[in-house]
Formats: sequence, C-alpha cells, structure tokens
Amino acid sequence: MHAYRSHTCADLTAANVGEAVRLSGWVHRVRDHGGVLFIDLRDHYGITQVICDPDSPAFKEVEKVRSEWCIRIDGTVKARDESLINPKLATGEIEVYARGIEVLGAAGELPLMVFGEQEYPEETRLRYRFLDLRRETMQKNMVLRSDVVASIRKRMWDKGFREFQTPIITASSPEGARDFLVPSRLHPGKFYALPQAPQQFKQLLMVSGFDKYFQIAPCFRDEDPRADRSPTDFYQLDMEMSFVTQQDVFDTVSPVIAGVFEEFGKGKRVDAPADWPQISYRDAALWYGTDKPDLRNPIKMQVVSDHFAGSGFAIFAKLLEQEGTEIRAIPAPTGGSRKFCDRMNAFAQKEGLPGMGYIFWRDGENGMEAAGPLAKNIGEERTEAIRQQLGLGVGDAAFFLGGKPEAFQKVAGKARTVIGDELGLTDKDRFAFAWIVDFPIYARDEETGKIDFEHNPFSMPQGGMEALAGDPLKVMGYQYDLACNGYELVSGAIRNHKPEIMFKAFEIAGYPKEEVTKRFGGMVNAFQYGAPPHGGCAAGIDRIVMLLADTANIREVILFPMNQRAEDLMMNAPSEPTSDQLMELGLRVIPRD
Amino acid sequence: MHAYRSHTCADLTAANVGEAVRLSGWVHRVRDHGGVLFIDLRDHYGITQVICDPDSPAFKEVEKVRSEWCIRIDGTVKARDESLINPKLATGEIEVYARGIEVLGAAGELPLMVFGEQEYPEETRLRYRFLDLRRETMQKNMVLRSDVVASIRKRMWDKGFREFQTPIITASSPEGARDFLVPSRLHPGKFYALPQAPQQFKQLLMVSGFDKYFQIAPCFRDEDPRADRSPTDFYQLDMEMSFVTQQDVFDTVSPVIAGVFEEFGKGKRVDAPADWPQISYRDAALWYGTDKPDLRNPIKMQVVSDHFAGSGFAIFAKLLEQEGTEIRAIPAPTGGSRKFCDRMNAFAQKEGLPGMGYIFWRDGENGMEAAGPLAKNIGEERTEAIRQQLGLGVGDAAFFLGGKPEAFQKVAGKARTVIGDELGLTDKDRFAFAWIVDFPIYARDEETGKIDFEHNPFSMPQGGMEALAGDPLKVMGYQYDLACNGYELVSGAIRNHKPEIMFKAFEIAGYPKEEVTKRFGGMVNAFQYGAPPHGGCAAGIDRIVMLLADTANIREVILFPMNQRAEDLMMNAPSEPTSDQLMELGLRVIPRD
Repeated sequence: MHAYRSHTCADLTAANVGEAVRLSGWVHRVRDHGGVLFIDLRDHYGITQVICDPDSPAFKEVEKVRSEWCIRIDGTVKARDESLINPKLATGEIEVYARGIEVLGAAGELPLMVFGEQEYPEETRLRYRFLDLRRETMQKNMVLRSDVVASIRKRMWDKGFREFQTPIITASSPEGARDFLVPSRLHPGKFYALPQAPQQFKQLLMVSGFDKYFQIAPCFRDEDPRADRSPTDFYQLDMEMSFVTQQDVFDTVSPVIAGVFEEFGKGKRVDAPADWPQISYRDAALWYGTDKPDLRNPIKMQVVSDHFAGSGFAIFAKLLEQEGTEIRAIPAPTGGSRKFCDRMNAFAQKEGLPGMGYIFWRDGENGMEAAGPLAKNIGEERTEAIRQQLGLGVGDAAFFLGGKPEAFQKVAGKARTVIGDELGLTDKDRFAFAWIVDFPIYARDEETGKIDFEHNPFSMPQGGMEALAGDPLKVMGYQYDLACNGYELVSGAIRNHKPEIMFKAFEIAGYPKEEVTKRFGGMVNAFQYGAPPHGGCAAGIDRIVMLLADTANIREVILFPMNQRAEDLMMNAPSEPTSDQLMELGLRVIPRD
Repeated sequence: MHAYRSHTCADLTAANVGEAVRLSGWVHRVRDHGGVLFIDLRDHYGITQVICDPDSPAFKEVEKVRSEWCIRIDGTVKARDESLINPKLATGEIEVYARGIEVLGAAGELPLMVFGEQEYPEETRLRYRFLDLRRETMQKNMVLRSDVVASIRKRMWDKGFREFQTPIITASSPEGARDFLVPSRLHPGKFYALPQAPQQFKQLLMVSGFDKYFQIAPCFRDEDPRADRSPTDFYQLDMEMSFVTQQDVFDTVSPVIAGVFEEFGKGKRVDAPADWPQISYRDAALWYGTDKPDLRNPIKMQVVSDHFAGSGFAIFAKLLEQEGTEIRAIPAPTGGSRKFCDRMNAFAQKEGLPGMGYIFWRDGENGMEAAGPLAKNIGEERTEAIRQQLGLGVGDAAFFLGGKPEAFQKVAGKARTVIGDELGLTDKDRFAFAWIVDFPIYARDEETGKIDFEHNPFSMPQGGMEALAGDPLKVMGYQYDLACNGYELVSGAIRNHKPEIMFKAFEIAGYPKEEVTKRFGGMVNAFQYGAPPHGGCAAGIDRIVMLLADTANIREVILFPMNQRAEDLMMNAPSEPTSDQLMELGLRVIPRD
C-alpha cells in the first residue's frame, strides 16, 4: 500500500465497502459520541468520516488528535446505516473504521479555526494565511482563479495566440503610476524598474513580427492602498495583434471574455458578444454618468434642458442661462412615492450636491397626476412633456440634476446605481457588457489650462495627422474599454505606430521630441524600422475572478496578498536590509526624523 | 475587404489563382529583374512572392520600398510558370501581381539585416532586438519556447495539477544566491525582495491543503554573468505535491519531461521514463565524474586501484599508500592509437593535472598486445587483468587517473566527455535521462572544517531524526536531480516538514533555533499547524528550450535578454533614478570614488 494514501478523502463510495484503505488529511472536526470518536478527515478533494471505538488498536492514539492535525488513517470501509447516509457528501454512503493512525504533522493552539468559516480580523487571516487558505471558501476561490486563468489560456491558444514572457526586471515604464525600483549591484547608483505593464514590450513584439501575442502578465505599481486593488502587483491578460482594426480586437477578445463568464458564472446570464453595445465615452457619461456603466441596470439618463429653460422653476431656469450647463433626468420606474424620492434627494445631499429635484406620478382623483414641488413650479404642460420623453407613467418617478455636467455627472451615476438597486431594477443574475469607445485623446487641465493626455498617450488618434491639426480637445482615439456590471474589465487601443504622428501627438501635450525619445526610446526607435499597425488590450484577472467569486475584496482572490499597508505579515516583508546588502548596492538609508 | 489583409503570407495556393487579395507584411527581399520588381513579402506565417511591372498603377510606389518596410499590397493571385514553382514554400505555386500598395511603416538604414541570417555582434543584436527577432531562427526559437511552455501546462493540468501564482514582491528568500531588493516607499529604509524561487510559498501551499501545485515561475537571482545563464531572472516549472514519496514525484514529472522532449525533439530518440536509471550521487561521481552525467556517452569509469597497488608503476603505487586515494580508469573503446592517447594526455595537462596514464591494445606480432608506458611498468598480468575488468580489446584504450577523487574527478568527467565526442561514441541524436539520488545533506568545508549544508537545507534526511543522531557526513537526503545530456534539468526533494527534525538539521550545520525561526519564519511557523509530508521539484524552462533548440547560449531562447553586464541596451536599463524617486524611497546613492 502507498505510504500515505490509497484514496483521497473524496473517493470512497458504497462500492468500496469492505476494503482496507489508507487516507491522509486534516482533522476537520472531531466528536465524541458516547465513547466513539468521529473524525471528519479533510483533504483538498473532500471529507471522509472516520470512526474509532475503544476496541480499535488505534483508539489511544486517535483520542489525542485535535483540529487541523495532519494524520494518516488505516482502516476498513463500512457502509453507513441507511438513516446516516449523507447525500450532500461524495463519500456520504460510507465511513472508515480506523485500525491504525500516524500523526504526520501535529498542530498547536489554533489562532484561526478552519471548520465553520468564522469571521476573523483580516490581519489574523493574513498572518496565518496557511490556515485561512484551508477554509472552504478560500479553497474554492483559489481553485476558481486557477481554473479561470487556465481557461483563458486555452481560449487564447485556440485563437492562434502564443504566450510570450516579457522582462520583469527592466526599464521604468511610462504608464502613469509609480514604478517599483530595483537597485543594480553591477551598476551602483543605477536602478531597474518592475514593469507597470508590458506595454512597450508587447508593442516591440509586434514590431518584431510576432503577429499575435498574449501573456498572463504580472504588473507592478507602487500605488497607495485601496480595498479593491493590491498595493504592489496584479495580473492581467495582456494581448496584442498586428494588422488589425478596433473591431478586430473586439471580435477576438469578446468571445474569450464571454466564454470565461459562461464557464464560471454559475448559471448567471451572460450577454452574447453580438449584443454588447458600443457606447461612446460621451454617451456613456450622459446616459450612465460613468465610463464603466452597469448595464444590468436599465435606467438611462436623458437631457431635459428644454423643458426647464424659461420655466417657473427658477433655479434650473437661471442655471441654463450659463454656458455649458444642462439639466438631466434620471428616470426611476416604480419609484413613484414621496418616501423614496425624499430618500434619493437625501442621498444626493450626502454626496455633496444641493439635492435632486423630482417628480413622481400617481393615481389622483382625476386620473394620473404629477406630484412633487418641481411639477408645481414648471406646470402641467412641461411636466407632461417630460413624462412623455422619459416614457414614464403612474407609479414612476424622475430625478433631476442641473449644472455643468462635469460637476454632477458622477453623483448622477451613483444615484442611478442606487435607484436601480433599491427599486430592484438591476438584474443581479446577469453579466452585462458594453464596449466604451471614442475616448478623447486630450483634456484641458482645469487648473493650469494646459492640454494633456486624458488616457493612454500611445493610442492612434482617429483621423491621424489631419485630426491633430485641428482642435485637440475634439480628437478622439481608437481607444476602448470593456465595462461589465459597473467595472472596467478590459482596456485597450489601436496604437499609434507612426513616429511622426506620435511626435506630433506628444508635442500637443507639451512634450518635445527629445523628451519623447528619452522616455520611450526603446519603442520610438523601433518604430523607425518598419512598424506594423497594431492594437490590443489588457483584461484584469483579479477583477474577473472577483466578479465571478462575487466578492468586492481583492484579497479574497489572491493567495498571499499584502495587507493595506503593503506588508506581508506572514513572511515579514518588507524588512531591514543588512548593511552588506546596502553596501553592495551602493546605497545609504536616509535617517528619518 | 479587410483594412490590412485578406490572407496571411502563408495562405495562398493554386486554388486562389485569379482572386483579388490583400496582403500585409515586411519586405524580406526586393529584386529588379529586367524592370520587373520581385518582392518577397514576409509575415509571421510565411512568405509570398509579389511582382510588379511598369504597367501596374502601383509601380512608382513599389519602386521606393526597401528591405524591412512594412507594406500592404493589393493584387491578383497568378499561377507561377511550371518551372518557377517553389516546392519549399507553402505559397510556392503562386505569386501576387501588385496593383496597389500602402506603406504602413517605412524603415531607415538597417543596422542588422533580417534576410540571410548574417552574424552580428551580440551587442548589435540586443540593441536592435526588434530586428533580430524578425529573423527566421529567432522566430522559430521563440515559437518553440512558447509551445514548450504551453505543452508543459497542458501536461500538468492533465495530471490534476493547478497553477497558482505566488508573490513576486516578497521577503528575502534563502536559496543561497543573492536577492534582488526592492525598496519600500511606504516603509522607507525597508526592502522587499524578488523571489529566488517560490520555494517557501509552494511549501506553504501544501500546508494550506492544495495538494498539487505547479507554476511556470519567474525566479530572480542577482548572479554574476555567465554565458548559459541570465544575470537577472529565469523561468522554472515549479511543482509540489502532498502525501508523496520520492518515487511518486519521479512518476509524475518523468512523463511530462519525456513528453515534451518527444513532442519537440525533432525525431531525436528520447529514453522512455521506465528506462531512466536512478544513480546515487556517489556512483555518478565515480562512473561519470559529475552529478549531471551525459548518458548518451556509454563510457563508465571504474576503480582499478587493486591492479596498481604494489605495482611497478611507482607513481600510482606510492599514491595508493596515502589514505583516501584511488586509481580510476576511463575506458575508451576504439581509442586504441598512440596519437589519440597522447592527445588525451595533453588535454589532461591543459586541465591542470600532471597527465593521464594510458594503455591501448593493438594487433601485435603475437596477437593482441598492450602498448603505452604504463603497460610496461605494471607488466603483462596486471595489464591483462585491467583489460578484462574494463571489457576492452584490440583497437581500444584506457586512461588512468589517480589521487584523491575530489582532486581529479572533475577533470576525469571532462575527459570522459571529450573521449566520447572524439571517438564518436556519444549518440548526438538522443536525449538520455537519469535521476541522480541520495545526495548527502552535509559536507565539511575543507578550509574551515565546519559542517554545512551541501545542498537544499529543506530536504528530509533519509532516516529522519535517527539518522541525524549519527555521523552527519553519512546522512543522505531525499533529494534528487534529473540529468539530461550532461545538464541538470530538474532538481527537487521530499521536504523536511517536521519542525523538530528541521531544527536539528539546522543545528548540526551551526544554525541555532532562533536564527532558523528568524530567517525562515513564515514556513517554520506554518509547520507548527499540521504540515503534511510533501515534495516536488523545479525544472529549468530556459535549459529545456536550449536543449531542444540545440543552442548553448541562453540569449537565443529569451525574447529580450540582458547582456552579460546585466544591461538592457534597447530599453536603457538600469538607469539613474530621479532625485524625487530616491527621496520618496528614503535612499541616497553613495558617491563612488
């Protein structure tokens, strides 16, 4: 017999009754029922019930074991009494009568119980991650993550992509976040950087003629902590293709993403890629108040300025006299009660706005009537015109926000989400996708008045060189995001592969040619030697797994995450270097006050 | 029609004749035959011949293109004349008559030609890697690497392993090499380290109950440059299993490795895993002079001390009077000529030994006779006994080395290789594998006399605690390597999962408990909470691909390697940090003299 196990803890069924078996695993739970010991023996695959009574030669040893000891049991498979069969357990038909035991690894007092999935402070869970990871939810999350990544790989291979590993110890990358630096020992005083993303390398791969690249790539950003991101690194499905248009990228990556969500979405509805709308950045802001809309929520905002211009509602009427202002409506089907409307108004105030005007429609004495202070102010005709534009009726409501869209748009987006949730309009059993397109290349900094890149500076401007000759704020890029349930899942672009257009694009943002050559030398130089048109995108692995595991905490889908102070409490990182190490690197730590 | 291509440059055959097509790619070569232009248009998939004559509306533009310009061609597929069909080319039956052209990316003066695979200095190749990678051999090598890694993943999945990503920004790891450090911004003065290997994490995964883990893992070591290793990082197939013996690990990993070599070995013979010998570390040293023997070479060394003890060959006879000395023979079938023997003797001298004695056997006047000075000194009887022990005959030779094995063993191993190569005994069309087992846990430092770990300190000693109570130098570990064609391909061990045995093992090497707890705290702490027996191994990906690509230079199988001074010339890494960066990290660079 094998030294440790003849079967896993998920293997044995009624077909094995009578067999001598050997099992290894952890003591999930141990109970004493009238002198008979019941052990739930757990391994990665399942749980088997082990029993031991005083007649067993192993009894004295079995009596000693405690939760989470790792043990080996030799015994005989017995059928359970009909009444004790557990249909929820793969091994629920049997139990193993223990005749021998070996303690493979005893356990001390447990700082964290595995059985029962109790809550513990995050610091405890991370410090004893090896115990935390034994718990059912964490085992499932990590298996899910591994299976999702494997599935992505298979799907990319099937589409003719090859995975290539790009350097991890490399040059500073201009992704906009802060680099992690790595001091060089052979070149004291000089530093490598960890890549914020393989952006330059994947573009270099296209220039090198590889045509289709992907990588499950670790990305490193020294960012300030936040609940939904790791303070050090994250993984992305990074991909790039040559000789493609934006639509080609969509057609390639959509079925991969949809396939993964179908495979692991536990039966939730997944919109078919053919039905994923392409929404311009501008429309997304208008309709949803965000560039990562949650389309499970059917609410679509609308501009209703005309109905308020010159109306009896003085606040809005005056507002509209200023340039660049707008009134927008958030329709709220089934939200037609004063109580609900007041709650939403309070929400807007909590978010820092003066409030949200509203109208709701109810059955009155003379049929349908519009209620709320706003309706009174603007009168029946305008109220009815608004109702018709928004397609609302009795029992529905609408909320109104006015001003410069930049000032209220974000809150409007949040309000839309809250309204959708509270009214049960948002379908929670669905993954809803949309491509957001036509991102502006530039934006004007409100404070300095300076034009700078709004998004990725390496995207090809729509209209190329000609477009750059006009108003920069009107130039849109071949740049796109995929939104899913309110998250940005994918981000990408058709790249600017023409050096002259790239230099011009940077010049508009105030970067002279020398600066561009200095900062992105590797890539810019390569573009002088026959660069193909190319584009691609990157999808956040952690984000995808979070959505599939239905958790909002990124640490639930990472094996050994840092805490929010970017510390690994289990491994004691970061830690003080030795003076020899500092000496070799030619560095000195500046003493702190 | 698609914006860039209707077909790839490998697609078109006689079946497409007459079709209007669009191709994109690079100008591999352009020739002018009597006013007609011939362009070999190349993409990742193949080459298509494009022709253009002065009648074409595209002629004036086509005339301008030069090597490595990236262009798009619109044209018509024409059958080639029977006599011009190129059966070596997938598209050899056709050519495309160009009617339109778009220059997608022009190229400047080329520092490196893609066509023709000329040799260039490595610095040129690395600085213009994006051109170097366009060359056929590099395209093939990178595709090979990608396919090998994909194949390994599939094979591991098929065996029930899941891939898990372990941290890259983490704590200093005790693998014996130098760490790359990463200064922490949130904790100035403290540093993270990049993992030398995921050793501790994979063991923690076993303690966490994951049972079967693998990862294509990047490993980071700040090592001094060498031709066959990257000065910064490398990739390994890292794997670990719980509840296993050494043989289980062999049975799991052998078919994966064998399968990969069969799949990508271009028809070379691959020894079946059932035939892979298990050779003890001691025997490997004796028979092959190395712990990574090349078994394609049939030569096996033997101890022949008895035949020289008290013999007329005074040097060896006297040597044998000293303790710990031995005479070993390297049989050299078909090496029986004075010329060859003298050359080998000279080789030994070049390697720093006084020389190698030899005997060779030839047809003499009275049948077989032994020749060479050694034979005369020890006489006919002893010579014949040696011949019989070694199983040699007419036309064969044997070489002899004497002294303390540690002193000559390495040269003996080299001599064995040279002899095998020069005599054509080594089968170059074969991948020959052997497990090397029973590595000693400890060795005595010759200079200090101190006992220290000889290999991995985390291996389980054979015989456990009891063995550690005896002579440490006799303790062997459950530790193993897989040798292939003279390279170490895999290295692994059954781990020491029992804290008390681990503390004892470290104590013998002079590390007190507190030190062990301090250096390996994460893992040692975890072992107190029910650690399962576990073991695994790591296989060098770069090494496997080097063997399959038949190259001895690791930079031929890495996309964007560092040069031997650990610099990336293309990306300009490492480089000077900004003073802001240093300030944020709380570091100062020590000025150099």
